Amino acid sequence: MTTPAIITVAITGAIPTTADNPAVPVEPTTQIASAVEAFDAGARVCHVHVRDEEQRASSDPALYRQVQDGIKAQRPDMIVQFSTGARGRRQDERFACLEHRPEMASLSTGTVNFPKGIYENPPDLVEYAAKAMLDRRIKPEIEVFDLAMLYTAADLADRGLLQMPLHVQLVLGVRNALPAREEIVDFFAAELHRVLPGATWTCAAIGRRQLDANRWSLERGGHVRTGLEDNLYYNKGELASSNAQLVTRLAQLCIEYERHPASPQEARQILGIPG
Amino acid sequence: MTTPAIITVAITGAIPTTADNPAVPVEPTTQIASAVEAFDAGARVCHVHVRDEEQRASSDPALYRQVQDGIKAQRPDMIVQFSTGARGRRQDERFACLEHRPEMASLSTGTVNFPKGIYENPPDLVEYAAKAMLDRRIKPEIEVFDLAMLYTAADLADRGLLQMPLHVQLVLGVRNALPAREEIVDFFAAELHRVLPGATWTCAAIGRRQLDANRWSLERGGHVRTGLEDNLYYNKGELASSNAQLVTRLAQLCIEYERHPASPQEARQILGIPG
Repeated sequence: MTTPAIITVAITGAIPTTADNPAVPVEPTTQIASAVEAFDAGARVCHVHVRDEEQRASSDPALYRQVQDGIKAQRPDMIVQFSTGARGRRQDERFACLEHRPEMASLSTGTVNFPKGIYENPPDLVEYAAKAMLDRRIKPEIEVFDLAMLYTAADLADRGLLQMPLHVQLVLGVRNALPAREEIVDFFAAELHRVLPGATWTCAAIGRRQLDANRWSLERGGHVRTGLEDNLYYNKGELASSNAQLVTRLAQLCIEYERHPASPQEARQILGIPG
Repeated sequence: MTTPAIITVAITGAIPTTADNPAVPVEPTTQIASAVEAFDAGARVCHVHVRDEEQRASSDPALYRQVQDGIKAQRPDMIVQFSTGARGRRQDERFACLEHRPEMASLSTGTVNFPKGIYENPPDLVEYAAKAMLDRRIKPEIEVFDLAMLYTAADLADRGLLQMPLHVQLVLGVRNALPAREEIVDFFAAELHRVLPGATWTCAAIGRRQLDANRWSLERGGHVRTGLEDNLYYNKGELASSNAQLVTRLAQLCIEYERHPASPQEARQILGIPG
């Protein structure tokens, strides 16, 4: 019997536009359709960013709600995860979407340099966000862009601001943050088990190492993420035609590592999210 | 034959005052005296922060120069290292002290949360500082408060903004940054050798794990740091009486690990700093 791997699809992100790849869904209707197609290909969690009418990153709670409602209407089993992390907007706006009580939301537990500036999550903001999710019974996905964020998550759990067991995502391949190195995945997974016993984890990589990161995760019992937010290509020089195309390949890849794409019920059971 | 360990003494820091420990030197005259005493006890590098008349962290280049000149007048072999890292001051002021061309200066290659806010080193500032040190032939001590800073240093070296071999300090024990864990030292040292062949390194810990960090470094071939900036105590509940007291104990500790305190000539040779 193989063990399940939860596939998360990051359908849109904060940065790529349809000029980069026409398959990037940037309006609620195309986002919903892309999520549904990805679910049918094996994705169980949909990581959502929203965009304004010029395709710029937005925090508008109405847009988040529209995407959430649309996915739930068609695929009620898909876990909708809101991003609270997009850059360049006022900090108090980033968490406004939590009012719609998504089943999951991303939570970065620290600050790091990104390619062109600082991705700011000062200690008081992190505590505020953790408490806001706890109060609303939203399962956080802890985003680890640098190692200290792992230990800060453990500290927040010790202080009762996060509920164990945690789900933690290691993000590699962002310039000025952590590079896509297998050694880092090894160390991260070992430390995670030591400081957060029982935690589940995903490794995601931005850019051309996306598939490598998928392999590193599958090999070590971690979960996986794909999608046009992280990587616009299917092969070198060949744009991906859809989120579902990337999910389909990843679902097949699971088999090589004696894993299988988690069913909706398995994903919910692993993450502790009731159906 | 034992291998040399360079002892750095961090005499003052940005935070502790004479109210915390009356031995903290906060005026140039007492800073110079403390550095001289520490040199005679075995310290070869003096890490310098300066303070204003109310003991608040300062970036005043005149104060830096006064301390540098005073140390050099009495102990010309001591390597003077200016801190460029103190918090809460304008970023352009932080590097003004480089005009005095210290032999070394600290250079943090990224951004991280500190206990009460963000320690800001955005990408453009890091590049500016690296270039300023390169142009003035100042040897940087790369300060790694979180793991990404190691890889960013390697990237800067690849781009010619830092000159190999580098000297890199891993700093542990700062709340919201990296905790004092031996596992981190192991991983840091392994990755350092992989991404920056030939680099030398120190591990420092802030607070009660200072001595543990010294042991972890000595055991693995790293160099060591002590001083009242990092730790105000000699033993639990017993304040240190001076920087020299901490240096004396550390010099003795070297022997346990088949190391010896580097001579001034050895320290300069290891760091590539001419006498």
